[in-house]
Amino acid sequence: MPWPSSIAIGTGALTIDTDFSISTSGAGASDPRVRIAVERVFPRLARQTAIPVVKHIEKNGAGATLSIVVESKDHRAPQQLGDDETYSLQISNGHARLSADKPLGAVRGVETFLQLVQQNAATSTAPSSTPGFSAAAITIHDQPRFAWRGLSLDVSRHFLGVEEIKRTLDGMSAVKLNVLHWHLSDDQGFRVQSKRFQRLTEYGSDGLYYTQAQIRDVIGYARERGIRIVPEFDMPGHAASWLPGYPRLGVGPGPYEIARGYGILAHLIDPTKESTYRFLDTFIGEMAKLFPDQYFHIGGDEVDPKEWNNSPRIQAFMRKHHFADAKALQAYFNQRIEKIVSKHHKRMVGWDEILYPDLPKSAIIQSWRGQKSLWEAARQGHQVILSAGYYLDLMFPASYHYAIDPMKIPPPAPNAREEGESEQAQPPPGSPADLTPDQQKLILGGEAAMWVELADPENLDSRLWPRLAAIAERFWSPESMTDTVFMYQRLTATNRWLEWLGLTQRSNLELMRQRLAGTAPYAPLDIFDSLLEPVKGYSRHAEKYSNSTPLNHLVDATPPESEAARIFRERVQTYLSAPKDQRDSRVLRYALTIWAGAAVAVRPTFTNESLLTADKPLIDAVDTLCRVGRDALTNLDSGKTAAPDWKQTSLTAIDPYVQHRVGDFLIQIAPAIQQLVQAVPGGQVQ
Amino acid sequence: MPWPSSIAIGTGALTIDTDFSISTSGAGASDPRVRIAVERVFPRLARQTAIPVVKHIEKNGAGATLSIVVESKDHRAPQQLGDDETYSLQISNGHARLSADKPLGAVRGVETFLQLVQQNAATSTAPSSTPGFSAAAITIHDQPRFAWRGLSLDVSRHFLGVEEIKRTLDGMSAVKLNVLHWHLSDDQGFRVQSKRFQRLTEYGSDGLYYTQAQIRDVIGYARERGIRIVPEFDMPGHAASWLPGYPRLGVGPGPYEIARGYGILAHLIDPTKESTYRFLDTFIGEMAKLFPDQYFHIGGDEVDPKEWNNSPRIQAFMRKHHFADAKALQAYFNQRIEKIVSKHHKRMVGWDEILYPDLPKSAIIQSWRGQKSLWEAARQGHQVILSAGYYLDLMFPASYHYAIDPMKIPPPAPNAREEGESEQAQPPPGSPADLTPDQQKLILGGEAAMWVELADPENLDSRLWPRLAAIAERFWSPESMTDTVFMYQRLTATNRWLEWLGLTQRSNLELMRQRLAGTAPYAPLDIFDSLLEPVKGYSRHAEKYSNSTPLNHLVDATPPESEAARIFRERVQTYLSAPKDQRDSRVLRYALTIWAGAAVAVRPTFTNESLLTADKPLIDAVDTLCRVGRDALTNLDSGKTAAPDWKQTSLTAIDPYVQHRVGDFLIQIAPAIQQLVQAVPGGQVQ
Repeated sequence: MPWPSSIAIGTGALTIDTDFSISTSGAGASDPRVRIAVERVFPRLARQTAIPVVKHIEKNGAGATLSIVVESKDHRAPQQLGDDETYSLQISNGHARLSADKPLGAVRGVETFLQLVQQNAATSTAPSSTPGFSAAAITIHDQPRFAWRGLSLDVSRHFLGVEEIKRTLDGMSAVKLNVLHWHLSDDQGFRVQSKRFQRLTEYGSDGLYYTQAQIRDVIGYARERGIRIVPEFDMPGHAASWLPGYPRLGVGPGPYEIARGYGILAHLIDPTKESTYRFLDTFIGEMAKLFPDQYFHIGGDEVDPKEWNNSPRIQAFMRKHHFADAKALQAYFNQRIEKIVSKHHKRMVGWDEILYPDLPKSAIIQSWRGQKSLWEAARQGHQVILSAGYYLDLMFPASYHYAIDPMKIPPPAPNAREEGESEQAQPPPGSPADLTPDQQKLILGGEAAMWVELADPENLDSRLWPRLAAIAERFWSPESMTDTVFMYQRLTATNRWLEWLGLTQRSNLELMRQRLAGTAPYAPLDIFDSLLEPVKGYSRHAEKYSNSTPLNHLVDATPPESEAARIFRERVQTYLSAPKDQRDSRVLRYALTIWAGAAVAVRPTFTNESLLTADKPLIDAVDTLCRVGRDALTNLDSGKTAAPDWKQTSLTAIDPYVQHRVGDFLIQIAPAIQQLVQAVPGGQVQ
Repeated sequence: MPWPSSIAIGTGALTIDTDFSISTSGAGASDPRVRIAVERVFPRLARQTAIPVVKHIEKNGAGATLSIVVESKDHRAPQQLGDDETYSLQISNGHARLSADKPLGAVRGVETFLQLVQQNAATSTAPSSTPGFSAAAITIHDQPRFAWRGLSLDVSRHFLGVEEIKRTLDGMSAVKLNVLHWHLSDDQGFRVQSKRFQRLTEYGSDGLYYTQAQIRDVIGYARERGIRIVPEFDMPGHAASWLPGYPRLGVGPGPYEIARGYGILAHLIDPTKESTYRFLDTFIGEMAKLFPDQYFHIGGDEVDPKEWNNSPRIQAFMRKHHFADAKALQAYFNQRIEKIVSKHHKRMVGWDEILYPDLPKSAIIQSWRGQKSLWEAARQGHQVILSAGYYLDLMFPASYHYAIDPMKIPPPAPNAREEGESEQAQPPPGSPADLTPDQQKLILGGEAAMWVELADPENLDSRLWPRLAAIAERFWSPESMTDTVFMYQRLTATNRWLEWLGLTQRSNLELMRQRLAGTAPYAPLDIFDSLLEPVKGYSRHAEKYSNSTPLNHLVDATPPESEAARIFRERVQTYLSAPKDQRDSRVLRYALTIWAGAAVAVRPTFTNESLLTADKPLIDAVDTLCRVGRDALTNLDSGKTAAPDWKQTSLTAIDPYVQHRVGDFLIQIAPAIQQLVQAVPGGQVQ
């Protein structure tokens, strides 16, 4: 994962043992990215297999286990949009060959090779082999579908340290993403040191920011992994953290403070003062040097015009320039900024609110509001990137994100039960078929987006992974890859593989639940939690949250998607398809027994005054669902008609959990339990 | 844990919130160890609680949450044996005060404070408090029982990187251990760079060694945590890794190779050549400068005299000097080495084989062979350290190690079923009561020992923790602390607390089992594994192991002690104590149901050709034990007499698992199941 563009299964396998070696050849093999990627193979293989492979690299060696050929040099720095990522990988009995025209292709191919190393991959074809690790014979030719495959990562609402960023880059590289869009400033914090304007971080970061040396370190780390870094400095809205240090950028007299709570803040940058543009010219000039990428993101989203509208001075400016409304004023601001960005040899990127007739065509539009503005921008001649439908913080399942395609009409957002997530439920957006082939080419790809109001270094990985891998496949793999069942099979395996990179999606949530369990055993809480999901959308973003609220409740320690509940639902479908199989029933009953037992075991922890107390209603909910589910299975297995009242009583009992959230949670086995009850013969239902 | 020497519970609690702050005062507060310990409190509190506490340190501040007073400076570097570690900690409503006379006391007290921060510690006394974290009111006066509280850690059989060493130092400091005895050379590898003798690592380490810069870094890291580093260079045996680079040190002509397999190797250093002593003088001189500690360990254990006895040259030397046997020759060697060590201003430490009448009294004896030699050495006037009974690699339970006391006759080793662990089952060792008070004072303390033939960076933590915490309590806490049940309660909590330091005893074993599960779900394998224990003693050290054998089988991923099995056994005792409680029966039955279900779920993974195949007999064993256990509970709950054959048949079915290991494992619920069966009324047993 992501699935390659062409794949052919062979016979035999390549066994991994302590003699594993790599040879490199070709003019491009001396590229540092190739050299470092090759060196990484050894410790990563050792971690995946526990086989003590030691570094053994030959130049032009004939007998190496894996030979890597990189035809051409490519000294372009920084990495450019559209740099060639093509590679071929051929694994046969005893040997593997990775070839690429350019260094970047080799970086991608190495990840594919590592992912193919599995326990016993050889067994089916080589029954005499001893248990161990191997890569099954295969021939792959691979290249990406889209050139821009990114993750937009907010580090303002909660600061994420260099360690978290590097870990995320490791994971991104493993699934062949190639852009980290670093959302470096917002109302809650300004996260980059400016040497020209030191008060930005001094007054706007609580001391939590990256030094320029750290930025350069991360950029180098990303380059080694074939990832571009696009910085974003959001303006003129989401800019409250600029103002405490430089109140003159604001509309009012100040003093200003950085935001602690969440939501759209009223404070805007003043677009009418020439001093604003002088400041931004200097600032963007400094940042344009710090960040080598060709693209520079200026945000531009969610401008609440209240402050502008209430300012007589700004209103006078607008009248003078014949600006009809705040949108026109923002368009003026964007054009001024675009000139500055261009002057510093960068291309401007902005969220789709910046789309306005006069916007220079060189500006790139990133749509977070839907396919409609994506395609509209392409129609107007802008290059575009899609983020709508890829918001990881909304806690939607991987299957939903996987179904979103920049070239297709999006599916409706999954039923979020009482959520009313308006951003995700749009009017029909038109059709990409309306675009000319040239306009279609302007669709560069997409970006997942992770906003971190409710994520921090501790649970970040669980919010990114594994769902980000499904999105990465959407951006890399052929459009025809749409089988959700197949995707989930591979996603499970990919998630496990990613953990060898040191990602913490499993281990940190376990520690968090261990914290919650206090002195009680943690295993029952883990089992209990395994069938829960956090509520979807933004309904948790109530006023009670600020960035000093500890994220240490159960919902913070619960993965966005319950694998156990998904498997349970699938099994119920299999069971309900006639003829009913008692083996399915046994498995379902075993799961319900375990969950019910866990509910009994954790009840005291939820009942005593603790961080779990607020989630106490979950206990009765799970208890009821498991009881009703087991009764339904008993009825179905016996084939008899249920007692007269049973069905109605049962449906009524579980209805709240089918229809509604339980506190901060959804219990995603509830609909399947309802189906089981409904399938029982007999019983009047009102 | 370790339990303090004096403790008084108060009322109220200190709540931890984002305003948490520390003030420091006193002449000793400027000591770097205090400053760094204070800085560490903030990130560690944040990790334990997820409350975003930020660094807030005042000098002599009155209103701080935790005020730390360190009366006196203590600039002695390095840390000396016996440096004052005394501290007092007083926690009351809203405030904590830590006071110590010396910096080291403050380092210890900070760990106690952090360990006391628990979820809801306040609830019982302050019901109106909101759920969160607090430290309950308490008054502690604390100081260690023994001055030498160590861990001897082998890094030769498997190399452990700086990262593992630092992680281990973190854990050691948390449980107030104060000596890392670093076993830096053995037959399988020489692990320290020597600038005078570069071929030691060049030919003797496979490239796996610490540079001198890394050594200095680790020593500094340890000093910050109040830990001394005592290096060991084992000689004249366990010295094969010296010889490939410097064959002239050996008895034969060479060439030599480092050992790959395990066991006692025949290659010894030649004690008859003057060149040997010139070499060692230079080498020890260099190392004495690198390692600042006052003590220097020269090993001296397990000398197989074959090579000396077979050498006519050495035999002639022995006759000339009237040495009766190889022991006398080793004593001569030790005396020569002792002179060299003393010349370089160090005190020599050696394993108990070096004890010999002429040995200078300044030499310290570390007994790995039992209390007998410990007390004998004290009687002869040597300072002594106990390691017998503290060998963590033997996989014994915490309760066994906890029962070992340097001042007491040791208990027999736990039933290791077919193990015959002779080192652990000694003849009566005499009694410490025979020692004069002055001789008793020579007993400095003890060291746990971890040999890493079957451990590597991946599973190291699981072999050290949590059992090492129980040993640490033995060394620190009053002799009267002997309640095993109370120890296990606290050990469980301490183990969880230690994981906040980043120790991997839980997470890495999970990853290892995830690797074994391959594409199958890993949860059933985790549950299945939870009732297993690796065999005890050295019976796994068969010839099949070498240091290139991957440690990736299930036994490598199984903790030394099964908490689930221990709790099950305890519950069976409760249940069997009349009157029988059906609630106990339900809990026991639930556990057996879950394990039996897990056995069903994992069977395919064990049956297919995989790394688990060799452990397939476990499936039937667990299946049988769970079935028989549930039958027994059914019989006991009903109160009826069992069917005539049932008891004999059941006992016969489970007998192999009660009496014998199953492959590399013990199933430690088997004896409890046997008790349940025997408790069923009726049934003839042959």
